[in-house]
Amino acid sequence: MKIAIIFGGSSYEHEISIVSAITIKNVVKKHTLEFIFVDSNREFYLIDAQDMKSKLFSSKEYLKKGKKLTLQKKGFFITGLFGNKKIEFDIALNLIHGRDGEDGKLASLFEFFDVKYIGPRIEASVISFNKLYTKLYAQSLGVKTIDYRLVDINDKRDFDLTYPVIIKPLRLGSSIGVSIVKSQDELDYALDVAFEFDEQVIIEPFINGIKEYNLAGCFTQEWCLSIIEEPQKEEFLDFEKKYLDFARDNRVSEVNIENSLKERIEECFKGIYGSLFMGAIIRCDFFVIDDEVYLNEINPIPGSLANYLFDDFDKVLEEVATNLPTQKNIKIDYLYINNIQKAKGKA
Amino acid sequence: MKIAIIFGGSSYEHEISIVSAITIKNVVKKHTLEFIFVDSNREFYLIDAQDMKSKLFSSKEYLKKGKKLTLQKKGFFITGLFGNKKIEFDIALNLIHGRDGEDGKLASLFEFFDVKYIGPRIEASVISFNKLYTKLYAQSLGVKTIDYRLVDINDKRDFDLTYPVIIKPLRLGSSIGVSIVKSQDELDYALDVAFEFDEQVIIEPFINGIKEYNLAGCFTQEWCLSIIEEPQKEEFLDFEKKYLDFARDNRVSEVNIENSLKERIEECFKGIYGSLFMGAIIRCDFFVIDDEVYLNEINPIPGSLANYLFDDFDKVLEEVATNLPTQKNIKIDYLYINNIQKAKGKA
Repeated sequence: MKIAIIFGGSSYEHEISIVSAITIKNVVKKHTLEFIFVDSNREFYLIDAQDMKSKLFSSKEYLKKGKKLTLQKKGFFITGLFGNKKIEFDIALNLIHGRDGEDGKLASLFEFFDVKYIGPRIEASVISFNKLYTKLYAQSLGVKTIDYRLVDINDKRDFDLTYPVIIKPLRLGSSIGVSIVKSQDELDYALDVAFEFDEQVIIEPFINGIKEYNLAGCFTQEWCLSIIEEPQKEEFLDFEKKYLDFARDNRVSEVNIENSLKERIEECFKGIYGSLFMGAIIRCDFFVIDDEVYLNEINPIPGSLANYLFDDFDKVLEEVATNLPTQKNIKIDYLYINNIQKAKGKA
Repeated sequence: MKIAIIFGGSSYEHEISIVSAITIKNVVKKHTLEFIFVDSNREFYLIDAQDMKSKLFSSKEYLKKGKKLTLQKKGFFITGLFGNKKIEFDIALNLIHGRDGEDGKLASLFEFFDVKYIGPRIEASVISFNKLYTKLYAQSLGVKTIDYRLVDINDKRDFDLTYPVIIKPLRLGSSIGVSIVKSQDELDYALDVAFEFDEQVIIEPFINGIKEYNLAGCFTQEWCLSIIEEPQKEEFLDFEKKYLDFARDNRVSEVNIENSLKERIEECFKGIYGSLFMGAIIRCDFFVIDDEVYLNEINPIPGSLANYLFDDFDKVLEEVATNLPTQKNIKIDYLYINNIQKAKGKA
């Protein structure tokens, strides 16, 4: 299978997406890859696989070495003097983390221009990108989520909180803009930081030492679930550790938990995935509090697609690519306008 | 102001959008209009204002008379031998009802390609296009909605209902696929009809003679609200009446209700509009049951933009066009990758 990895984007997670794409290059063995970079200006560039090094982008060398593409009906094209040449691939893979990739834009572009793709569809993107909508969606399915308070940038900051709390921009991933606040006097600064990234933030109680479990997967003809991992947490990740987190390519070992808990986590995952996330490989992060499973967040495009959680990642890609949801074909026959014309005696 | 009306789309409401666009042509007096048609194949065509008649589209004459456009960075272009010519306008107006227009696709295209537009943003589209998400969103704001049952196409149909009920496809507007079901023996057929249009449907109690009130508006520097209308309802609208409904251009008279009810309806509207619908002129349809206000649905692109509810529709367009929400400018400085390079001794 030939897969076109779409990465970059006008996103706070632009650089992380580059790291993810390089990692995918290293872990995918059975498929051929093309790389299509979306630069900060939202222009598309075809990047040669052997040029896929982070410095190509940070040095802006991609402007010279990459080939500029346009997105048109059915795919990406190189425009030349003698017409357009189509970039051939079987399927695109949306690997843009954050804005553009996870907010529904890329899904919309691919559906409008009729490009087959692996990744969350428009609704799935919006529901998982916005932490409030994630909670409302989970609650509607009977999946528990952590209590929260939504704060707008224009709201008065006169609320009482029980500390510690965790403050998150409403619409970002990868811990960007997130702070743990231990007392009232740290609150203002943490809110200011979060409001740098979004006009709305969400405040949740921070539970020290909470048990966290990650599970990735997709539904194709059947459920294809990864192992469950208990991620190693440190209160603050420096840039190198964050880098390593998105560059993960070594399979991790499964957490040792009771079968009944494992099954409950898997049931929650399946409920959340539902029909909404068809076509995407997602990772859900769960908390367990007093033996109850809570959804923390949905990563519809997890770092390096959570390849390290799967036994045979190449096969997962193939399965999801061959079981994509399809757009309904809407036939437009102008029956309605023709009837009106007839009624008016004009047809 | 020069406004480009975008209409058509790959949507069950394609023809209705054409009717809407022709109506807008007739009611807008102070602004210059361009017309960009999205055909059923999702190709763009520039249509001369004087050609804006429904028969141009039903006869496929637009293929000859229209000029084919491509959407690229910053706008729509006519591609020619001597380069691309940009179609000049101050702002686009999304008038595609249903799929493509109201599901987040057009919003995504305009944001990605950096085209200024009037219409719902991506999140606003998804929340209002899906009747379940509309309810979850309204509930989270404390706005009441009608009880419902969500049914998937694969679900067993062994549920008990108290009749009459109303059955609606989860994601359509304009009453398409909607049935009122008076007894159990009509249920299967009505579900089959609705499942023709969507794989999920919503069932609500149907309350005969319920009071319905419509209110349109937007927030710019201040609230710009229309009068409240009590729509004339008939149980079944034939095609000509539906046509008339989207072609409305005569100002209607305000309903005669108590001030306190009017204020409560307006408060609900403002809550729903919030910051989510900034940039759009929306119409909310409310029910009043036992003196309580319920949200029925949000039309983020109402038929002919509900022009008939406003005193000075030209001014509303101008107000919303000059108070659009803006995309955050994300600066990508490669600080993170540069730091990694330094740490590795490569920079």
